[in-house]
Amino acid sequence: MTDESRIWTAALVVVGDEILSGRTQDKNIAQLATWLGVQGIRLREVRVVPDVMDAIVEAVNTLRARNDYLFTTGGIGPTHDDITVDAVAQALGVPVVVHPVARKVLEEYYESRGGINEARLRMARVPEGAGLIENRISGAPGIQAGNVYLMAGVPSITAQMLDGLTGKLEGGLPLVATTVGCWVAESEVADLLRETEKSHPGCQIGSYPFFREGKVGANFVIRSTDEALLAACQKVLEEGLAAIGRMPVPGGI
Amino acid sequence: MTDESRIWTAALVVVGDEILSGRTQDKNIAQLATWLGVQGIRLREVRVVPDVMDAIVEAVNTLRARNDYLFTTGGIGPTHDDITVDAVAQALGVPVVVHPVARKVLEEYYESRGGINEARLRMARVPEGAGLIENRISGAPGIQAGNVYLMAGVPSITAQMLDGLTGKLEGGLPLVATTVGCWVAESEVADLLRETEKSHPGCQIGSYPFFREGKVGANFVIRSTDEALLAACQKVLEEGLAAIGRMPVPGGI
Repeated sequence: MTDESRIWTAALVVVGDEILSGRTQDKNIAQLATWLGVQGIRLREVRVVPDVMDAIVEAVNTLRARNDYLFTTGGIGPTHDDITVDAVAQALGVPVVVHPVARKVLEEYYESRGGINEARLRMARVPEGAGLIENRISGAPGIQAGNVYLMAGVPSITAQMLDGLTGKLEGGLPLVATTVGCWVAESEVADLLRETEKSHPGCQIGSYPFFREGKVGANFVIRSTDEALLAACQKVLEEGLAAIGRMPVPGGI
Repeated sequence: MTDESRIWTAALVVVGDEILSGRTQDKNIAQLATWLGVQGIRLREVRVVPDVMDAIVEAVNTLRARNDYLFTTGGIGPTHDDITVDAVAQALGVPVVVHPVARKVLEEYYESRGGINEARLRMARVPEGAGLIENRISGAPGIQAGNVYLMAGVPSITAQMLDGLTGKLEGGLPLVATTVGCWVAESEVADLLRETEKSHPGCQIGSYPFFREGKVGANFVIRSTDEALLAACQKVLEEGLAAIGRMPVPGGI
C-alpha cells in the first residue's frame, strides 16, 4: 500500500552494551536505513541504549509514540542479558507470554540440534498479542508488537527478517537520491549549495567532504521524492560547479 | 585526574542525515566508545538525529543534563546544512560568536589554500564562552561548550580531536574486559552465564553468538573495573564450559 500524501517515519532502538563499549561496530543502522528508504519510510531517529530495562522502556515509549514504526535490534536471544522482549512488553503495558507458533518453530529447529531447553524457549516469549517475523537462519523469529518490530542483533539475521517484511509496511513515496562529486573544497561552494537548494523546494542537498590522493573533494547528495525535480536540481548544481571551473562528476567520486 | 569513587558517563549525539539515509556507515560511535573506555568514562547512550534544529536541541538538552559529558559528531563544517553550533548554542541559551583564535587558525590554514571566505569563517563560530579543541588535519577546530564537546563528522578528524583530549577529562577506573570464546550454542550455556555473573558481583558477562565454518559459537565478554575479580570470573566460566565438554578459548574465537 502506498499513501503518497504524507511522510511515513520510523525510529530505531539499538539495544546493546556491545555497541556502547565499542567492542562491536554497529551495522544495523545503515542496513535498516537503506531498507526503509526502499519502503518509502524515513528513518528519523536512532537511539543506542544499554541492556538496562528502564533505558529500553524509555526509548521505546518515546519513539513509538512519535513515529509510524519503531524497530529494535538486539537483546532477543536466549541468554540472561536478552531483555528486549520484557522491556517492550513493559512499554506496551502487556504481559510476556509464550507464542505457540514460535515454540513450535523452535522445537522443530532444535530437534536435530540437541533439543529444546529452557534457555532456547526464552526465544518463544513475546509481548501478549504480538505476531512473528520469520527467521530462516536460526529458528528464533522476530516479533511484531503493535507498531514495534523486534529484530535480531546479528546483522545477517536482521537482513533476513527485513527481507521477509519487504513490501508489507505501508509507506509513502520513496526518497530518491543522486550524487554529484567534485574535486573542490566544500567551503568554496557553500553559497552555490545553499542557493541551489533554496531554488529547488522539495530537494535537500547534503555535502560530504573527503581527503583523498592528497586532494580535497566532496560528494553532494541531492534527495527528493520527485525525480524530475531531482534531475533539475542536479543540472543547476553541475552547471554551477562548471561555471567556477570545477568539473562535476555525476555519480560521485 | 581520577575519581575512583563513582562512575563517569558520557553520551553522544550523532548529527547526520547521511547516517539516517543509510548512505554513510557511522564509525564515530565505536571510535568514541573505545576512547572513552580508556579515559574511565562509560558511553551510556547515543542518539542519531537529522540535521534539524529542534531535533538536535532536544537531544543535546536531555543528554547533557544526565551525563558528565556530551559529545556531538557532525554538522560543524562550512555548508548550509552544518547547524550543530547554532543548535548547541540554543540548547545552552547563549548567542553564537566568532572565536578570535579559531578565526586566526582558519585564516592561517587557508592562506595557502585560496584564502578565507564567508563559508570558511562559519567554522570559527562557537557558542559564546566556548573553548577550542585542536584539529591538525583540516584547520577547523572542535569546540568545548560547558560539558558539550563538538567533534567533526569525518571519523579521521574526530580521531585526531580525541587524541588532543586524551587524559584531559576527569574519569573513574577504566572498565577492563576479557573474552572467552567457545564452539557452543549460547542457548546451551545460558544458565552457566547467568549463574557465573550472579556469583561475581561487579562483573558483567555479555554473550555474542556467531555462525562460522558451518558451526555455532559464541564469545563471552566479561567486564569489570576490578582485574582480580575479572580473572576469578573468567576462571569460573572456563571451568564451567570445560565441565560440559566445551573447551573454552581464552581471548575469544
